[in-house]
Amino acid sequence: MLQMSSRRGFFFQLATAALGTRLRAEDRPKRDMIVRSARPEDLEMPLSGFADYITPIEHFFVRSHVYVPTVNAAEWRLKVEGEVGKPLTLTLEELKALPAVELVSVVECAGNGRGYYTPTVAGVQWNRGAVGNGRWRGVRLADVLRRAGIKDSAREILFDGADVPLGSMPDFQRSIPAKKALDSNTLLAYEMNGETLPVKHGFPLRVVAPGWASDSWVKWLTTIRVLDKEHDGFWMKGAYRHPGKPVPPGAAIPLDQMQPVTSLRVKSVIAAPLDGAQAIVGKPLAIRGVAWSGDAGPVTAVEVSVDGGRTWKAAALHADQRTQFGWRQWQLDWTPPQEAYYTILARARDAAGNTQPFDQEWNPSGYSWNVIPRAGIDVVKEISAPAAAAQSDAGTRTPPGGFREACSGCHEDDLIRQQRLTRAQWDREITKMTGWGAKVKDEDRQSLLDFLSGSYGPRPQGR
Amino acid sequence: MLQMSSRRGFFFQLATAALGTRLRAEDRPKRDMIVRSARPEDLEMPLSGFADYITPIEHFFVRSHVYVPTVNAAEWRLKVEGEVGKPLTLTLEELKALPAVELVSVVECAGNGRGYYTPTVAGVQWNRGAVGNGRWRGVRLADVLRRAGIKDSAREILFDGADVPLGSMPDFQRSIPAKKALDSNTLLAYEMNGETLPVKHGFPLRVVAPGWASDSWVKWLTTIRVLDKEHDGFWMKGAYRHPGKPVPPGAAIPLDQMQPVTSLRVKSVIAAPLDGAQAIVGKPLAIRGVAWSGDAGPVTAVEVSVDGGRTWKAAALHADQRTQFGWRQWQLDWTPPQEAYYTILARARDAAGNTQPFDQEWNPSGYSWNVIPRAGIDVVKEISAPAAAAQSDAGTRTPPGGFREACSGCHEDDLIRQQRLTRAQWDREITKMTGWGAKVKDEDRQSLLDFLSGSYGPRPQGR
Repeated sequence: MLQMSSRRGFFFQLATAALGTRLRAEDRPKRDMIVRSARPEDLEMPLSGFADYITPIEHFFVRSHVYVPTVNAAEWRLKVEGEVGKPLTLTLEELKALPAVELVSVVECAGNGRGYYTPTVAGVQWNRGAVGNGRWRGVRLADVLRRAGIKDSAREILFDGADVPLGSMPDFQRSIPAKKALDSNTLLAYEMNGETLPVKHGFPLRVVAPGWASDSWVKWLTTIRVLDKEHDGFWMKGAYRHPGKPVPPGAAIPLDQMQPVTSLRVKSVIAAPLDGAQAIVGKPLAIRGVAWSGDAGPVTAVEVSVDGGRTWKAAALHADQRTQFGWRQWQLDWTPPQEAYYTILARARDAAGNTQPFDQEWNPSGYSWNVIPRAGIDVVKEISAPAAAAQSDAGTRTPPGGFREACSGCHEDDLIRQQRLTRAQWDREITKMTGWGAKVKDEDRQSLLDFLSGSYGPRPQGR
Repeated sequence: MLQMSSRRGFFFQLATAALGTRLRAEDRPKRDMIVRSARPEDLEMPLSGFADYITPIEHFFVRSHVYVPTVNAAEWRLKVEGEVGKPLTLTLEELKALPAVELVSVVECAGNGRGYYTPTVAGVQWNRGAVGNGRWRGVRLADVLRRAGIKDSAREILFDGADVPLGSMPDFQRSIPAKKALDSNTLLAYEMNGETLPVKHGFPLRVVAPGWASDSWVKWLTTIRVLDKEHDGFWMKGAYRHPGKPVPPGAAIPLDQMQPVTSLRVKSVIAAPLDGAQAIVGKPLAIRGVAWSGDAGPVTAVEVSVDGGRTWKAAALHADQRTQFGWRQWQLDWTPPQEAYYTILARARDAAGNTQPFDQEWNPSGYSWNVIPRAGIDVVKEISAPAAAAQSDAGTRTPPGGFREACSGCHEDDLIRQQRLTRAQWDREITKMTGWGAKVKDEDRQSLLDFLSGSYGPRPQGR
């Protein structure tokens, strides 16, 4: 490593040395992330991340309403005010002097899975990876509130961070009920995965509201305000709201008929094999993934189907992961009995008996997607090289010479228009139709194929 | 009725009188059918047809490879030849002199449901209605074969009808194994639902191969040939073949690696309520439909979910419909407990324990679709008038004045491009974004909405 001779490499080494033996999260090599928005930054973890029990910081999803604020830890203060007997202003050192608590908890964006809703819903089109399982260390919010002399009149606890709104966007502030705030699992965290809380994840302090969606996990925390009534700010009354019951797909529900997003739903993800992978017939295969829930957790069972949901088998749950709010790794060892394509599904059940749906009710903000995940695998004798990229389907809309002769003798064009096929499928179809009696001259075949695949190609997939 | 004075009406009455008190099926008023192809005629029964136990002839699906032949019953003969001791030529009267047998059986096109496959598959894009439940009356095929002295060498029985192929298309001929042909339930039918077999359904005689897809139910039957080996004609070797195991979606499987389509799969259809219907909160609702299977039938249980597949309840099966091959009507009475949108699913199980999948494996011809059906209903206090037709989403691709000021202050265009929303959703989104601080002038709002809904409208639905 020290042989690195570029100027950048040299300074990189110096900076690393100054910070100690570990690189800061921000400086470590990036792992593969899906960029949903570059500005502000919204990064999604790909499915490969679900192989980890504790999600590495470099792989942890990032959801930003605005730009990341620069916080000087020495000048930073936490204010506790409102319905308290003794308003506080605490330094980081004073906070860290309180009893430290550590817990493992999933943090998941309320909109994780939004991209799967039909009809589609406005917002970042997350698939599965706006979620991670972190090890959080900090102080109990209850300890801070009690130190400030929280009054009996306290109803909701409002959080505000150092982030600055863009333009005239309202400042991001979220509140949680006093009961959730006083729960011994609700923390103010200054460490994540054993190191200082990274800047993107709220340095120097963020709320940890385990079991709840991440809109309650306010980052860069600077102010806690104890309220005697429900908060009426924009981000409580105007965003992160759910109708609380299924509504007709595409419905526009007034915000005042919705309630704030709170608990996560029971959910599983298949980490391996990946959809579209190949596997070897007769060779044992580990089907594995993770599962979590929210307030109704922990996960108590995961069932796996290898036949599209006709039959199910219980997966093994990792025995050492019986935490209330972290995810649990599960695994089912299975030997594919024949060369075939298998459709794998997984469904989790939590301590309250909730399970995942096969078909999810729509909601206007596309929150809380937890449909049973699927992965299709091709079981073969030996793994083949990846298929060559498909040819372009660009074509003309004017029927070429020979089209009428080939096709219209036996049927109308409506039969053609309802087909939506790949070029390879159209090629096979022309061969099939010549078997059925279609007259296709050799010199016309290519232009016929261009026309059909260009005009009647596959429909985009909804999910 | 006799007051009808138009010339057409007069002759219509005469014709009716001549045929007896019932109108011929061809002359009765049409019921609503979905025209999948006008020439040759492919007609699908809409979901309303599943309310009937015996499907009326006017509602029975029609699948035509070619045009309907004109058969003169007096001149018509059935030939039985091949591996028989005594080749026969039978008139209709001679056939009807054999013992008559009646049975109720579903007949379903192998391609029923093809329109739901992803990736899409070439062929008629049937949804659910290429199926019907008929009452068939005729003679046992076994009685005819035994009368002809079928030999021990018989392996397959080939059927040919009076239909004439189009152009150089091979003549439609299908064979079934001798074992299926000799089964006492396999008939040669001359009646359907208590009347003479209608022309579209094979007048004067068709094969009834209960439990098997309709490609084996050859219409306008004129020749039965007993073969000592598998038939190698085009329609056995080149069409109506299934890989017999799941294959990767979009795969092109050589025909010689596939086998002929035979038995139907267990399947249910929700007849009521229809997808998108409204229902009244607190008022009992009958969820009902039909279910059938093939060789593995009959259906022994149907379960219904009203919550997207999280929980299931047993439906009642009609007690008087315990036939081997007919469908069974089922019903679950349910009272919607709250105003909400409910996702109803149904899954049938047959005598062999087969059940329906949630997610079906693809096959190259799109045969045998039997995924669990769904219907979403909106439960309300009172039924509302149908919504007005949606406005046209046509729009311009050039960002209008005010677009940059309104949208680009806080985020890049990529966030917009990934949204696929209806005009109503975009309207709501503009309102939401002004709440988030977007500057939208009143005079710009309409052109902004035109642009967004015109450029970033909903994706077509895959299913």
